[in-house]
Amino acid sequence: MRPSGRARDALRPISIETGATKHAEGSCLIRMGDTHVLCTASVEGRTPPWMRNSGLGWVTAEYGMLPRATHTRNRREASAGKITGRTQEIQRLIGRSLRAGTDRVAMGERQITVDCDVLQADGGTRCASITGGWVALWLAAQKLVDAGELKENPISEHVAAVSCGVYAGQTVLDLDYAEDSEAGTDANVVMTGSGGMVEVQGSAEGATFSRDELNALLDLASAGIAQLVAAQKEAISR
Amino acid sequence: MRPSGRARDALRPISIETGATKHAEGSCLIRMGDTHVLCTASVEGRTPPWMRNSGLGWVTAEYGMLPRATHTRNRREASAGKITGRTQEIQRLIGRSLRAGTDRVAMGERQITVDCDVLQADGGTRCASITGGWVALWLAAQKLVDAGELKENPISEHVAAVSCGVYAGQTVLDLDYAEDSEAGTDANVVMTGSGGMVEVQGSAEGATFSRDELNALLDLASAGIAQLVAAQKEAISR
Amino acid sequence: MRPSGRARDALRPISIETGATKHAEGSCLIRMGDTHVLCTASVEGRTPPWMRNSGLGWVTAEYGMLPRATHTRNRREASAGKITGRTQEIQRLIGRSLRAGTDRVAMGERQITVDCDVLQADGGTRCASITGGWVALWLAAQKLVDAGELKENPISEHVAAVSCGVYAGQTVLDLDYAEDSEAGTDANVVMTGSGGMVEVQGSAEGATFSRDELNALLDLASAGIAQLVAAQKEAISR
Amino acid sequence: MRPSGRARDALRPISIETGATKHAEGSCLIRMGDTHVLCTASVEGRTPPWMRNSGLGWVTAEYGMLPRATHTRNRREASAGKITGRTQEIQRLIGRSLRAGTDRVAMGERQITVDCDVLQADGGTRCASITGGWVALWLAAQKLVDAGELKENPISEHVAAVSCGVYAGQTVLDLDYAEDSEAGTDANVVMTGSGGMVEVQGSAEGATFSRDELNALLDLASAGIAQLVAAQKEAISR
Amino acid sequence: MRPSGRARDALRPISIETGATKHAEGSCLIRMGDTHVLCTASVEGRTPPWMRNSGLGWVTAEYGMLPRATHTRNRREASAGKITGRTQEIQRLIGRSLRAGTDRVAMGERQITVDCDVLQADGGTRCASITGGWVALWLAAQKLVDAGELKENPISEHVAAVSCGVYAGQTVLDLDYAEDSEAGTDANVVMTGSGGMVEVQGSAEGATFSRDELNALLDLASAGIAQLVAAQKEAISR
Amino acid sequence: MRPSGRARDALRPISIETGATKHAEGSCLIRMGDTHVLCTASVEGRTPPWMRNSGLGWVTAEYGMLPRATHTRNRREASAGKITGRTQEIQRLIGRSLRAGTDRVAMGERQITVDCDVLQADGGTRCASITGGWVALWLAAQKLVDAGELKENPISEHVAAVSCGVYAGQTVLDLDYAEDSEAGTDANVVMTGSGGMVEVQGSAEGATFSRDELNALLDLASAGIAQLVAAQKEAISR
Repeated sequence: MRPSGRARDALRPISIETGATKHAEGSCLIRMGDTHVLCTASVEGRTPPWMRNSGLGWVTAEYGMLPRATHTRNRREASAGKITGRTQEIQRLIGRSLRAGTDRVAMGERQITVDCDVLQADGGTRCASITGGWVALWLAAQKLVDAGELKENPISEHVAAVSCGVYAGQTVLDLDYAEDSEAGTDANVVMTGSGGMVEVQGSAEGATFSRDELNALLDLASAGIAQLVAAQKEAISR
Repeated sequence: MRPSGRARDALRPISIETGATKHAEGSCLIRMGDTHVLCTASVEGRTPPWMRNSGLGWVTAEYGMLPRATHTRNRREASAGKITGRTQEIQRLIGRSLRAGTDRVAMGERQITVDCDVLQADGGTRCASITGGWVALWLAAQKLVDAGELKENPISEHVAAVSCGVYAGQTVLDLDYAEDSEAGTDANVVMTGSGGMVEVQGSAEGATFSRDELNALLDLASAGIAQLVAAQKEAISR
Repeated sequence: MRPSGRARDALRPISIETGATKHAEGSCLIRMGDTHVLCTASVEGRTPPWMRNSGLGWVTAEYGMLPRATHTRNRREASAGKITGRTQEIQRLIGRSLRAGTDRVAMGERQITVDCDVLQADGGTRCASITGGWVALWLAAQKLVDAGELKENPISEHVAAVSCGVYAGQTVLDLDYAEDSEAGTDANVVMTGSGGMVEVQGSAEGATFSRDELNALLDLASAGIAQLVAAQKEAISR
Repeated sequence: MRPSGRARDALRPISIETGATKHAEGSCLIRMGDTHVLCTASVEGRTPPWMRNSGLGWVTAEYGMLPRATHTRNRREASAGKITGRTQEIQRLIGRSLRAGTDRVAMGERQITVDCDVLQADGGTRCASITGGWVALWLAAQKLVDAGELKENPISEHVAAVSCGVYAGQTVLDLDYAEDSEAGTDANVVMTGSGGMVEVQGSAEGATFSRDELNALLDLASAGIAQLVAAQKEAISR
Repeated sequence: MRPSGRARDALRPISIETGATKHAEGSCLIRMGDTHVLCTASVEGRTPPWMRNSGLGWVTAEYGMLPRATHTRNRREASAGKITGRTQEIQRLIGRSLRAGTDRVAMGERQITVDCDVLQADGGTRCASITGGWVALWLAAQKLVDAGELKENPISEHVAAVSCGVYAGQTVLDLDYAEDSEAGTDANVVMTGSGGMVEVQGSAEGATFSRDELNALLDLASAGIAQLVAAQKEAISR
Repeated sequence: MRPSGRARDALRPISIETGATKHAEGSCLIRMGDTHVLCTASVEGRTPPWMRNSGLGWVTAEYGMLPRATHTRNRREASAGKITGRTQEIQRLIGRSLRAGTDRVAMGERQITVDCDVLQADGGTRCASITGGWVALWLAAQKLVDAGELKENPISEHVAAVSCGVYAGQTVLDLDYAEDSEAGTDANVVMTGSGGMVEVQGSAEGATFSRDELNALLDLASAGIAQLVAAQKEAISR
C-alpha cells in the first residue's frame, strides 16, 4: 500500500497552468500533486559565444528551489555563494532533455533559457521541471512563430519525464517524498512523445536492482509519460 | 495622469492569500497589482550564535527574485555566486522593519526567517515583501501560540510599507514599474499599525526634492499604509 | 548632556586636508572629530561598457574600512572574499549622492572613481565619506579643467552629508560612536549646496519615530550641512 | 569498424597497478587503454558531523583531471575557484557506487575518501575511476583488517563500471574518446561482482534510443564488468 | 646616478610616527620617502584553534594597498573577491619576519595581528611594512607589560627590512619605484637588530646575478638595516 | 647523520622520464627520491591580452598537489574554491624561474603553460617542479622547432633548482620531508646551466642564520644544480 493510497501505476493529479507570469515569452505552473514548479522560458536573439555562426540554436535550463519549498528550510544557494552538485546535475539533465525535442537548425541562432523554480516540493521536482519546462519552451517558440520570426515551431517533439522506483518491495510510478525517502531503487526516465528514450537514470539506494526490476520500472514509466504528454497537449491547445 | 489611470493617492489592487505553501509555519502570496511575492516564515528553535543566552529572539529576512520575474531575464544570483548590493540592501531593510514590530523578549530564544521571493515584479517589490512578510511572520508566531509554546503572539505591532514618489511633477502613491523608472524622486516608507515611523528612505533620482515634497510624500504614504494594515488584519483573521 | 559635551546642534571639529596622496588626481583627508577618511578621486578616460556612446560621464564610489579603524578589529573584507551588505549599501549611497552634484553631460565620457577609506572610525563614516569624497571629486575634475580637457568644472553643485538622531530623548546633530550605538533613531541626510535634498534615510533602532521628530532632525541636518559646505568651499579655495 | 579496430564487445587493455603512492592507505594506478587514473583511499577515524553516532561508516569520492590530461589544456578547477557541474556529477556517482559495495555497519564510524585523479584521458574516466577506486578502497579497508582494527573487510562486494554506446549505428563496449565524441547514445553502467545493478545512466546525444538498444547495451556492459571484476580480483590478490 | 640623486648606499628619509590611530593597541605611520604605510597591531586573548594549549603565542600579519596608493588605480581586492598572489606572498613574509623577533613562550597564548595598509606607494612597501609593523607590534606588547599582563616585552629582538638591487649596473640600497621598475636584480633582506639574517629573497628580473653581486647587495642591506633599527629604537623610546 | 643516511652534499636519486603523457607538447615525470612530479607543457598560439603585439612570448606555470600526495590528506584546492597562498607563491616562483631561461623574443607571440602536479611529496616539490618543468618546456619548444614553426629552441638556458638548509646544526643539500620539517634554516636556490643565480630564497625557521651559513648553503646548491643540469641534458638527449 502506498502512503498516498495510489495504485502502483497511478500518477499524482497533474495540472499545468499556462501563462503563469506576464513577462516571460512562455510560462506555466506545473503541479504534480504537492510538487509545484514555476517554469518560464526566455528568448534571446543570440546564442552563447562558443556556438556563434554555427547556424544552430540553443536551449538551456536553470533550476532552483525556494528555501522553504521543503519540510525544513534549506540555505538559499545565492547566500551560500554556490550551486550545489545536486542542482547542477538537475539543471544539466533538464537542458539535455529539452534539447532532445528541439530542432536546433529550424530554431536559428537563438537561445531559449528555461527556468524551473520549485515553489513547493514533494518529490519528483526534476521530472516535473522537464514536463513543465517543455510547455514553457513550446509556448515561447510558438510566440516566435506567431510573430512571424519562425516558420514553424522548432520544438518538434514532446519531452516529458517521470520518476519510478522500488518502494516496499514493489515497483511504483511517480514517487512522492514519503516514498522517495524510503525507496530502495529510484529511476528517472525521460522520453519523447513518440516513445523514444532520452534519458534513463536508475540508481540503487540500498539493495541493487535486477534487469527484471529495471524492465518493470521502464514499463511503468512509459505508460506514465504517455499520460504526461497528453496533459502537455491539452495545456498548449488552450 | 498615471499610466495605470489610478488616482494620485490610490494603491494598486491588493490581495494576500495565506497558506500559500504547505511546509512553512507561516506563508502568504501577496499581490500588489502585478507585483507578486511569495512570503514564507520558518521557525527555528535557536538564535544565531552571537545572540545566544541573551533571552531574546531574532527575526531575519532573505529576498530573492526569480530570474524572469522582470521584463528581461536577470542572471540568477546563485549562478553568479554572489548576492548583489541591491538584494542585500533590500533584505536588510525587510529584516529591520519586521523586527520593529516584534517583542523579542516575548518571542524567547527562537529565530524566524522570512523568505520573500518575487515571482513577478512590477515595482514596489521591497514594500510588498515587508507587508506580506509581516503576515507570514505573524502566522508562524501564532502557530507557536496555538501549539502552546508561547503565551501570546510576540508580533506585537503591524508593520507595512509602501513606495511613493514624484512622477511627472506630481506626488503619487505606490509606484508601478512604469512610474518608478521615470520618477524624479522615489521614497519607501515603513510604518507600524499605530502610525509610528520605522524607516523613511527618500532618494532623488534626478532633480533634488524639497521639504514640502517630502511632507506630501509622507502624507500619501501614511494613508496608504493604513489601508495595507487593514488588508493584513483581514488576511490573518480568515 | 552629550558624551562629548557638545551642544545639540554642534558638529564635531572638521578638517579637510587636500592633496593627501600624491598619485590621485584629487584627494583629501577629512576629519570629523575622531572619524578620519582618506578620499581619492581617480579619472579614467572611458565609462563602463553599459554606458558607452551615451555622451554621459559616470561617477562611482567605493568604500572600505581598515581592519583596525574600529574599537575591535574587524575581518578584512578582501580576506573574507566578499563585501558585506553594509559596505555595499554605503558605497551605493556615496555614488548616488556624488552623481547628484555632477553635470554628467558637461563631464563627457569619462569615469571618476572616488575611493573612501576609513583610517579611524568614530561614527558617521558614510557622511564624512560623502563630504570628503565631494572635495576629492571636485579637485580631480578641476585638474581636467586646468589641463584644458574640460571648459568648466562639471561638479556643478556641492554635496555634503551629516547624521542626526534621537539620543537620550533629544534630537542631536552629528552622532559620534558613543551616541550612535545608543541612539533610538538614526538618520543620514544628504543635501546640495543650494539646499535641495538628495537622500533622507531615517531608521528606528528601537522605538519608532514621529513626524515631528523627523522634522526636528531635518532642521538640524540642514543647518549642519550648510557648515559642511562652507568647509568644502574653504578647502577647495586653498 | 571501431577506430581502434577493437571488436564490438572488447574492452581496452586493462592494467591495475596497486601501491601506486606511498602515503595513501590504499592506492592504484588504473589504465584502461590510454585512460590513466590514479586512485588513492584515505582513512579517517571519524565520519562527517551530520552522521556522527549513527554507528555507520562513510565512503566518499573526489574526482579531478589534470589540466593537460586532455587533447587541449583545460583550466585548472582550483584556479577557476569552483568545481564544474560535470566534476560534481562524476564524484557523486563514484561515491554512490562505492558505497553500494560497502557494509557500512561493519565499517564502523570511519570515513574513507577515495580520490580519483585523471593523469591522462581517453574516454571513460568516470568508469575507470569507479573500477580503480574500488581497488584502492578495498586495500585501505584491508589495511585496517591487517592492523586488527576491523575483523573482516567491510568492502563486501566488488563494484565496477564500464561505458557503452551506439557508435556508427552499432552498440559497442568501452568507448574511447574518438568513439565517445561521435556516439549517438552513451551509457554508463555500474554493477556489483554478483551481477546486481547499481547505476544505469543512458543518455541520447542525438537521436533517441529504443528499449531494444538499451537491452543490447546492458548485455555488453554486464559481460564487460565481469572482466573488470576479474581484473580487480587479480590486482588485490597480488 | 640614481633618479632621486641619492648615494648608492643611502636610504630614503625615514619617519616613524607612533600612535597613528587611537583604537589599536600599537600603531605607527611609517614613511620611507614617498612610501607611506599605516601599521596597527591588535591583541586578542587567544590563539588560532590549531595552536591552542601549546602554551605559545602567535603573531600574524595582513597587508593591503589602498586602490589609489599607486600611479594608476588598482582594483580593490575586496571587490575582486580574492587576495592576489602578490598580497599573499607579502603578508606571509611579514608574519614570518615578525615572528622571528618574538619570544612566543614569553608571549603566552595570545595572538597579535599586525595590519599593514599602504596609503601611498613608491617602492619597498613590503620592507616598510616589516620595519613599521615591528614598531606597532612592540608597542602593543609593551601595553600588555604596562597593564601588568606580561612581565617583560616578548618582542625580544628588533626586526627590520630593506630592499636593494642592481640598477643601471650598480648595486643600490632601498629602491624607489622608478628604480624598482628598471632593476635587473631585486632583493629583499630581513635581519634582526643583532645582525642575524631572517630572510633573503633575491630575484633576477632580467639577467641573472652572480655571487659577488649578491654579496655586495647583502653588505648594503646590513648597513641599511642598522639605520632602520636605530630609527625603530628612537620611535619606541618617545 | 641524515635520516636517509645520505652525505651532506648528496642529492637523492633522480630520474626524469620524458613523454610521460601523450597529449602534452612536452612532458616528464621527475622523481627526486620519493618526490614525484608530473610536468606538462602546453603550447598556445597567443599570449595573454595584456602582452599582445609586444612581439614577446610568455611562459607561465601552475602547481598543484594531489590531495593524498602527503602523509595525511589535504583538502583539494578546487573543493576549497581557492588556491592557498603557498600554492600561489610556488607557481609564481616556477614561472619566474623558467622565464629566466627563455629567449622571449625568439619564442615569438606564443604562450607555454607548464603544469607541475605533485603525485607524491617528500620535500622539495617546488624545486623538482622547476627542474622537471624546464624539461617539459624545452621539449614543447623543440616540438615547435621540429615542426618548422621556430628556427631554434628559444629555451636558451638550462634552469634547475634545489633546496638546502641547516639540519641538526649542519648544512645539507636537497632536504627530504623528514629533514625539512626539522630544519632551522631552509633555502631554495634556482640557477641557470651557466651558473647564474636566478632566485635565492633563504628563510630562518627558528634561529636566524649568518652570512657564513648562507655561503655554505649556496656552495652546496651550486654543486647540486650542476648535477641536476646534467640529468636534464641526459633526459632531453634521449
